[in-house]
Amino acid sequence: MISRPASRPVRSADDYRDTIEQLLRPLAARPVEYVTVAEALGRQLAEDQHAPIDLPVFRNSAMDGYAVRAQDVAVTPVTLPSTGVVAAGDTGREALVPGTARKVMTGAPLPAGADCVIPVEDTTADTSSVQITRGRSAGEFVREPGSDIRAGAGLVSAATMLAPRHIAALAAAGLARIPVFAPVRAVVISTGNELVAAGTALRPGQIYNSNGIALAAALTANGVEVAGVEHSGDEPAEFRRLLHSATAAADLVITTGGVSKGDFEVVREVLIPLGGDFGSVAMQPGGPQGLTVVDGVPVLSFPGNPVSAVVSFEVLARPILRHLSGLGPVPEYELPLLGAVRRSPEGRRQFLRGRLVCNGARPHAVEVVSGPGSHLVASMAAADVLIDIPAAVTELPPGATVRVWTL
Amino acid sequence: MISRPASRPVRSADDYRDTIEQLLRPLAARPVEYVTVAEALGRQLAEDQHAPIDLPVFRNSAMDGYAVRAQDVAVTPVTLPSTGVVAAGDTGREALVPGTARKVMTGAPLPAGADCVIPVEDTTADTSSVQITRGRSAGEFVREPGSDIRAGAGLVSAATMLAPRHIAALAAAGLARIPVFAPVRAVVISTGNELVAAGTALRPGQIYNSNGIALAAALTANGVEVAGVEHSGDEPAEFRRLLHSATAAADLVITTGGVSKGDFEVVREVLIPLGGDFGSVAMQPGGPQGLTVVDGVPVLSFPGNPVSAVVSFEVLARPILRHLSGLGPVPEYELPLLGAVRRSPEGRRQFLRGRLVCNGARPHAVEVVSGPGSHLVASMAAADVLIDIPAAVTELPPGATVRVWTL
Repeated sequence: MISRPASRPVRSADDYRDTIEQLLRPLAARPVEYVTVAEALGRQLAEDQHAPIDLPVFRNSAMDGYAVRAQDVAVTPVTLPSTGVVAAGDTGREALVPGTARKVMTGAPLPAGADCVIPVEDTTADTSSVQITRGRSAGEFVREPGSDIRAGAGLVSAATMLAPRHIAALAAAGLARIPVFAPVRAVVISTGNELVAAGTALRPGQIYNSNGIALAAALTANGVEVAGVEHSGDEPAEFRRLLHSATAAADLVITTGGVSKGDFEVVREVLIPLGGDFGSVAMQPGGPQGLTVVDGVPVLSFPGNPVSAVVSFEVLARPILRHLSGLGPVPEYELPLLGAVRRSPEGRRQFLRGRLVCNGARPHAVEVVSGPGSHLVASMAAADVLIDIPAAVTELPPGATVRVWTL
Repeated sequence: MISRPASRPVRSADDYRDTIEQLLRPLAARPVEYVTVAEALGRQLAEDQHAPIDLPVFRNSAMDGYAVRAQDVAVTPVTLPSTGVVAAGDTGREALVPGTARKVMTGAPLPAGADCVIPVEDTTADTSSVQITRGRSAGEFVREPGSDIRAGAGLVSAATMLAPRHIAALAAAGLARIPVFAPVRAVVISTGNELVAAGTALRPGQIYNSNGIALAAALTANGVEVAGVEHSGDEPAEFRRLLHSATAAADLVITTGGVSKGDFEVVREVLIPLGGDFGSVAMQPGGPQGLTVVDGVPVLSFPGNPVSAVVSFEVLARPILRHLSGLGPVPEYELPLLGAVRRSPEGRRQFLRGRLVCNGARPHAVEVVSGPGSHLVASMAAADVLIDIPAAVTELPPGATVRVWTL
């Protein structure tokens, strides 16, 4: 049995999240790694990238057709001698003789002296000449060097989360390796003598360990690299050993279990002497919470009930981690409630599991899919949102507008 | 030079996508692989999963507190002899003697004979007895076996794209390995003598090869596994060799370049004799398109301009591949246009690159960020949507409502 240090008074979920946010703020300054552009999808660019060359690099044809001088095709139809062909990849160094045409392929360099391209559709050719049925002005179907971007101009800005369109632009500019921020690296330590791994038969009193796997998935889905998923029994020595290994390997440690008012609270027992700030947050599920800095690394201690652990992550960590990783905010909606919420605890903000009711892709209402119990983890699989019931609200009629967060 | 087989008449983008969809339909029946639940994030479940056990497995306490019989605490305050403590993970096999209390931790098995739990907050205890200040009804703070899910009940349905909440439920039920569909596997072959890899200095007429890297990123971002990214010059023998290697390795091949009306169209030259259906689709960019089945594998042939290749993917392939991979539809909006579209080609549906203008997270308008040229790949980095201008529309005033697709 452990002594019970005085807990902090009850805090609101928003206040507590602000405290976590301040503690995690230094994680914004992460080391820079170099990766190839091909590996950079979903990574966050660390420095502004500029075009090292003009794009297009050289004046080229926008069509398959004939390079001519516009003045030579001002009156049509006209037949011009046709000399040679420039394919994409050719150097195109031979200048066009005035009064002649030269066949050019899309992307091929325009011969010096030519100022427009007649699309092949507007021509009929034999081996040595081409008849042109429609003239074009100077510049038509010609791509000028630098008309997409000039050498030295900004191509993709620092902090951008690299999507396929950014990858396309970086590759087209010929960039080979680019600097990206290292991801936030986290270790999850679930605690509890009662937890056993999947694939083992349960003995009386045991349950399967889901928190490690579930939080690792949630971290991964939000841009965090999972550097380890560990399990500790309720022995302080074991937890302490795993804790210090975790702080050596990660920017952030998340623990589950061992935070409430019971007698075998290994997380509180080890972390409070290290300065841990443990107490109640006015939310349900997820009330008992702890926050410690160990070896310079923030340690978030979530409750051990599977739903409490996942909701703690969603409410207290996910928005911060998405922001740190350069991902967009969690999608939120305000929607009418199908059915009533008959009872919500006064003074505690409640997060009910809900399901969007959609017309096509557009949600138009939300329904509660599971009871409030923090053990209802199977039921949570059917939910796609959390319904946020403010602390002061104790019941809601059908049709009441509620705020929901996408899971 | 190659002969020019008759091309199909111009088709609409929707008709052509329907043709591709029919060709890709067999990819819905992909092989099943077994992965651990921990590896299953983002994979598509292949078979309905049922709970192999009741959850909770055993009757347990929802609170840290005292297990009692409700009838023994009907009148409070009351002091009961307190015998022992049940921690989470204990077997909890010793029955409660009527008229006594036993300390129980959250998640610990409820002793037989007890029917409710008094939260520790409503008690004061010494070593051998506990004073209870508030009674509870039978069932309060007790989690009944199977109250979350019954053994045999449906836990997660086939075809579900596994999110963290599904992972949590599958892990809590103790499932170790689960069947998921193999991803669609694709190989990209970019073609063109003019293309060189990043990191090489450009010689006259050369450009950097971006299509392979960009399409690989787009495929990855839409649930497709990229089994190879190749580059072929304009020699038919080289392209043919890479093509057959690709069909041996993948469910789908995408080629870029070599599809238009030029003289060195290696893709058309090799694929038309194999039954390739090449022709014009009434869209810009992305007009020239080809579709072939080689060695039983669908081959989509996109144009080689970098923007044309990416827009072809977005319009013609992405919605189908997302559906096949179990991902949601591409987000679409209808939004007012900032500024005018002065000129759009009649008879061709145009996809302009645009940027959402947002109030907070909510888009309220869209602006065009780049000209229509299919070489403007750097400019495309600034776009986050495609603006869909119907074929019949040739100009749009500021404020006109347009349909946009998220990139």
